[in-house]
Amino acid sequence: MPEAKLTAAELERLAIEDVPFAGGLGVKIVRVGAGHVVAKLAYQEDFVRPGGTIAGPVMMALADLVMWGAVMSLIGPVKLAVTTNFNINFLRRPSPGELTAVGKILKLGARLAIGEVSLFSGGEHGDLVAHVTSTYSVPPRAQD
Amino acid sequence: MPEAKLTAAELERLAIEDVPFAGGLGVKIVRVGAGHVVAKLAYQEDFVRPGGTIAGPVMMALADLVMWGAVMSLIGPVKLAVTTNFNINFLRRPSPGELTAVGKILKLGARLAIGEVSLFSGGEHGDLVAHVTSTYSVPPRAQD
Amino acid sequence: MPEAKLTAAELERLAIEDVPFAGGLGVKIVRVGAGHVVAKLAYQEDFVRPGGTIAGPVMMALADLVMWGAVMSLIGPVKLAVTTNFNINFLRRPSPGELTAVGKILKLGARLAIGEVSLFSGGEHGDLVAHVTSTYSVPPRAQD
Amino acid sequence: MPEAKLTAAELERLAIEDVPFAGGLGVKIVRVGAGHVVAKLAYQEDFVRPGGTIAGPVMMALADLVMWGAVMSLIGPVKLAVTTNFNINFLRRPSPGELTAVGKILKLGARLAIGEVSLFSGGEHGDLVAHVTSTYSVPPRAQD
Repeated sequence: MPEAKLTAAELERLAIEDVPFAGGLGVKIVRVGAGHVVAKLAYQEDFVRPGGTIAGPVMMALADLVMWGAVMSLIGPVKLAVTTNFNINFLRRPSPGELTAVGKILKLGARLAIGEVSLFSGGEHGDLVAHVTSTYSVPPRAQD
Repeated sequence: MPEAKLTAAELERLAIEDVPFAGGLGVKIVRVGAGHVVAKLAYQEDFVRPGGTIAGPVMMALADLVMWGAVMSLIGPVKLAVTTNFNINFLRRPSPGELTAVGKILKLGARLAIGEVSLFSGGEHGDLVAHVTSTYSVPPRAQD
Repeated sequence: MPEAKLTAAELERLAIEDVPFAGGLGVKIVRVGAGHVVAKLAYQEDFVRPGGTIAGPVMMALADLVMWGAVMSLIGPVKLAVTTNFNINFLRRPSPGELTAVGKILKLGARLAIGEVSLFSGGEHGDLVAHVTSTYSVPPRAQD
Repeated sequence: MPEAKLTAAELERLAIEDVPFAGGLGVKIVRVGAGHVVAKLAYQEDFVRPGGTIAGPVMMALADLVMWGAVMSLIGPVKLAVTTNFNINFLRRPSPGELTAVGKILKLGARLAIGEVSLFSGGEHGDLVAHVTSTYSVPPRAQD
């Protein structure tokens, strides 16, 4: 099992500095493994949408951040990795509370990284509220 | 050609009141037709991401708002319409400036509305930077 | 744990009778649980595509059949369930041999069923070659 | 306007020779432009699925073939271009008759080509029955 190429603290700092729109939401990185990231997002009032649930774009921002972190956990803090495709299915309306996102890389290739992110209402054993698959384009690497 | 069931001003107000996370970004609704919405989003510093471009979740929030408006342009301001699927392909890195989103409904059925949103850097004739398809679940309607 | 509402033999027969395009490929249903289907597809010469690998549409047909079976495992052999969205990411080129598909339902709602299918080269512990998420529209049910 | 790098007749022949699973369905290439392909598929009995409509995987196979042709219309008959993502929304049940597919490339980059395919029941002005977006990975090119 390889080691992750960045720590939870480093990812949390990079998120705030480099992607302030998502990083500024207050995402907490719970843990980072090689190709694996878990994060939490506390509820804020402006996340609401009709029905007393959480707006879809909040979940998208959280999932995209976790996917980005999962890519960097394998290739290091390479800032120019960019999302090329992001597909989300919304399964259940989350209650207005904490969200937990669990992301993992399914395949890291020479050019593309593909992964999935599961979003839960509450903790990791809460209800699955959304499921994401996403592809990142990764810069050429010297060696892998 | 049927008339839109809400105006640009109504959609802009609903966005701010009902979905503050996206509505609070400062989206301007340019025009609304039946099944058709055009909106603009001015650049803000915290939209940045590495490479001097605009973060993906900003584009997702804009596109989801436009799709929501396009659904309501056909069924009226029914607050409980919710996204069930959202798929975005990022085509080019937008420069850090205004984005324009053009959304249209491809099919309004009894249960689901499916549409697409094209995102341009600058105005409607700028570069296509992202393309979205999305499905909304719509509440049962009395008559259609 | 609820019981599946159809057996592997019933699903294999329905596939051949009702969806001959995919069912006629020779898909073997390995097992069916409630919301869970595993199937295998032996290689045939006309599945080839350049690079000595298996054509994408063969994998799509297999995955869609498995998803259809997983829906019916929960709601019974309701023929009018139809795919509304199907999203596939191709991860690795499979070698020209047997494929195994493992499908499970992530959420069964009143109107929609959402699931994922993982496709492996060889058996269930082979390389993950493609990953699918898919949504089915399900007819109204008397009771659930 | 650049010229297409292969003709309709060449694409039809390549489809039969190189991707026999889809090519063998009897797809007719109506026309090819640079980044643009139109094709037709006559109905066959084994395309049926419950409800008297056409099975989803038939539409997927047709759309993937058209997207492949649209990529090759820009880069030439490069056999190793492969689908990385394919997302289809089914909008209406087609009647059991001819399908027409209209594909166009939205962006051709150094590594990826992204396009969309619209599927109509009957001719190009028939009902839109399905909409596809798809990404191809394209081999490095000497010059563009």
